[in-house]
Amino acid sequence: MLGKYLENVRKKSPLIHNITNYVTVNDVANILLAVGASPIMSDDPDDAVEITQICNGLNINIGTLNAHTIKGMFVSAEKSFELKHVNLLDPVGAGASKLRTDTAIKLMQKIKFDVIRGNSSEIKTLVLGAGTTHGVDADKADTVSDENLDFMVKFVKDFASSSGSIIALTGAIDLVADSQRCYVIRNGRPEMGKITGTGCQLSGLITAFIAAEKASPCAGRGTACGGGVNLLDATASGVCAMGLAGEIAFKNLKPDEGNSTYRNRIIDAIYNMTGKILDDGAKYEIR
Amino acid sequence: MLGKYLENVRKKSPLIHNITNYVTVNDVANILLAVGASPIMSDDPDDAVEITQICNGLNINIGTLNAHTIKGMFVSAEKSFELKHVNLLDPVGAGASKLRTDTAIKLMQKIKFDVIRGNSSEIKTLVLGAGTTHGVDADKADTVSDENLDFMVKFVKDFASSSGSIIALTGAIDLVADSQRCYVIRNGRPEMGKITGTGCQLSGLITAFIAAEKASPCAGRGTACGGGVNLLDATASGVCAMGLAGEIAFKNLKPDEGNSTYRNRIIDAIYNMTGKILDDGAKYEIR
Amino acid sequence: MLGKYLENVRKKSPLIHNITNYVTVNDVANILLAVGASPIMSDDPDDAVEITQICNGLNINIGTLNAHTIKGMFVSAEKSFELKHVNLLDPVGAGASKLRTDTAIKLMQKIKFDVIRGNSSEIKTLVLGAGTTHGVDADKADTVSDENLDFMVKFVKDFASSSGSIIALTGAIDLVADSQRCYVIRNGRPEMGKITGTGCQLSGLITAFIAAEKASPCAGRGTACGGGVNLLDATASGVCAMGLAGEIAFKNLKPDEGNSTYRNRIIDAIYNMTGKILDDGAKYEIR
Repeated sequence: MLGKYLENVRKKSPLIHNITNYVTVNDVANILLAVGASPIMSDDPDDAVEITQICNGLNINIGTLNAHTIKGMFVSAEKSFELKHVNLLDPVGAGASKLRTDTAIKLMQKIKFDVIRGNSSEIKTLVLGAGTTHGVDADKADTVSDENLDFMVKFVKDFASSSGSIIALTGAIDLVADSQRCYVIRNGRPEMGKITGTGCQLSGLITAFIAAEKASPCAGRGTACGGGVNLLDATASGVCAMGLAGEIAFKNLKPDEGNSTYRNRIIDAIYNMTGKILDDGAKYEIR
Repeated sequence: MLGKYLENVRKKSPLIHNITNYVTVNDVANILLAVGASPIMSDDPDDAVEITQICNGLNINIGTLNAHTIKGMFVSAEKSFELKHVNLLDPVGAGASKLRTDTAIKLMQKIKFDVIRGNSSEIKTLVLGAGTTHGVDADKADTVSDENLDFMVKFVKDFASSSGSIIALTGAIDLVADSQRCYVIRNGRPEMGKITGTGCQLSGLITAFIAAEKASPCAGRGTACGGGVNLLDATASGVCAMGLAGEIAFKNLKPDEGNSTYRNRIIDAIYNMTGKILDDGAKYEIR
Repeated sequence: MLGKYLENVRKKSPLIHNITNYVTVNDVANILLAVGASPIMSDDPDDAVEITQICNGLNINIGTLNAHTIKGMFVSAEKSFELKHVNLLDPVGAGASKLRTDTAIKLMQKIKFDVIRGNSSEIKTLVLGAGTTHGVDADKADTVSDENLDFMVKFVKDFASSSGSIIALTGAIDLVADSQRCYVIRNGRPEMGKITGTGCQLSGLITAFIAAEKASPCAGRGTACGGGVNLLDATASGVCAMGLAGEIAFKNLKPDEGNSTYRNRIIDAIYNMTGKILDDGAKYEIR
């Protein structure tokens, strides 16, 4: 029943402020447009605060941070939080350098993010203070598998509890948890790791899903327009949508195509995805 | 008879200096190459002045401006204007923040741009000093339609007159005007709004069209190599080319394709466009 | 017998630190993933030194340099060289501005790069101190042709000798030389010049090829696991792979496709390339 969150994004068309890296920013913008949201990018401290005010959600990604944009992140996060917009943190490369780890942790100290999305090494770094991040990719030793699933579900629930944020730890198996419930999601394809920025794109998508849900809580779980905001389900919906898009796009790949065309086909699959397609294709259990 | 301006770009291969945003910059570079121009990007004040000297035209886009690149914009604009190169301003997000609005207006005070290209909200902001820009997209209330067409034609002619620039206000209906004549252009597809940066790409294209026209005025209006430079018609030609590329690309889209592939197909359509194709497909009237 | 170097990249999966321009950075990341390497981008001085430590090679590209990223280039180059990682310099636009020429030359004074890759105008600028660079493209007068081939082979060997670096001068004919041997490579398609960043992508690729070779010298020339590191052959292998990908992608192009789709198909061709495909398709002689 996650398809309604996708439909809600198309209906509400939230405006999403992205302070993100220059590597994957174009794909983030296009996937936000594909899902029916509007992207805007702004990272200068003198511009970003005002931009964040007219938006519905803020997506902070530290993939190519620098002294100037870090300032932009802090002032925007503070303003966005004050205005009760939704806020997401993507701690790209946390664990790979002190600046990245420190920036992510200080941002978490400054405001409570609605969602923190990262790979297993990045999330472990945020919890343990140091990690084994292999550049911007997860270290194999950190991967979520059926063998360590019980442990990892507890791990993300605990981190959700201590941080007050929904944790989306994504990889071969995706975990999306608050302190009580954890979605275990098995959508996606391993070949998605051969495209730069599928994680960044997912962070953009999730921000749109939770911004739409906050703007229109009627989309929430079984509550016939009377219920509360359900950001956990909205986040899980975004994660399933991205993984499912990866599956659909992979089926559409032709023999001589590779990762660059695959990138386009994934965004195309989000563009063509309906609530029903998502409901039919989402593969998850809740623990 | 706008096709000859396209052919002139392919013949002159102008070198275009772009100070543009990091979101859509790659597509701007590729569409400039597609039309036969050469792109170069440089925004550092210590680099940009020298780069602009070896170029034929300057395209300033404030989509992800910051304190450092704003300096680069001003020194480049001044040098480019002094050298009598063509200059275009794309005031992305004017109206969405004070920094954007102020930067655009101060740039207009510093030099006379040959062309200012923006959506209806951005152009209204430049005229009225404040706008209702919905992020980087036009507010619906500002859209040009058949209902307000007479008013809007007068509006852009008046702004062309007061600014001394050709105004290209683009949207569902595109208006390209100097103080006397206004092209009303009906090429394009609404789906182009679902791709990030079609406006930025168009600004790059127009800069190439007017740079080629200035370099070789023989391409001008019915003047058999004796006439003057005709930047208005060259601008209108660029706007028609982009819209027509959107139409051609849309026809080439396959059922499972979406906005990301559409982006590629639009640039591809520019790559394959001839003067004849443009002459046959351009849809405009002059008021 | 260059195919084994490609296979070695897929086997070693080197992590490549790129300080590169924001125009073509996404394509650089995707082609590195296509060949089996891992990209990471970082240009802030406070981040880049630490990032370079966890990597296997450093690719410095000055395409959109600024005061802040230039600092990042210097501190990273110094650290990477100290750690005996492989280092490549792509002097984009050297000759087009003093800042670009000076930065490239000062970087060469600071460390000995394993490879310097540029077009003919950029390489001539590094040797002669001033050039005739047409923006970021080579000036026609500088092009390598069958007429000036003997002269140019000697020219690059001499520069390899004086600089201590392998020189990869790429264009219609590619030359890859150390002081003793020069590969004359005839892979590629002229249409590759209509895509932004094929040179930047090649620089990323070469960095991965030489990083893998340095990590696992057994891939070296006919040495049955006992030989030394062979960075010249590894560089030539990367150059052949890129040119061959351009040929394969061109064959796969459909009538209405142009430079944007061609870009994707080239990266796709690298993604699908095997050592055997490269061995069968590489066109070179050694002088």
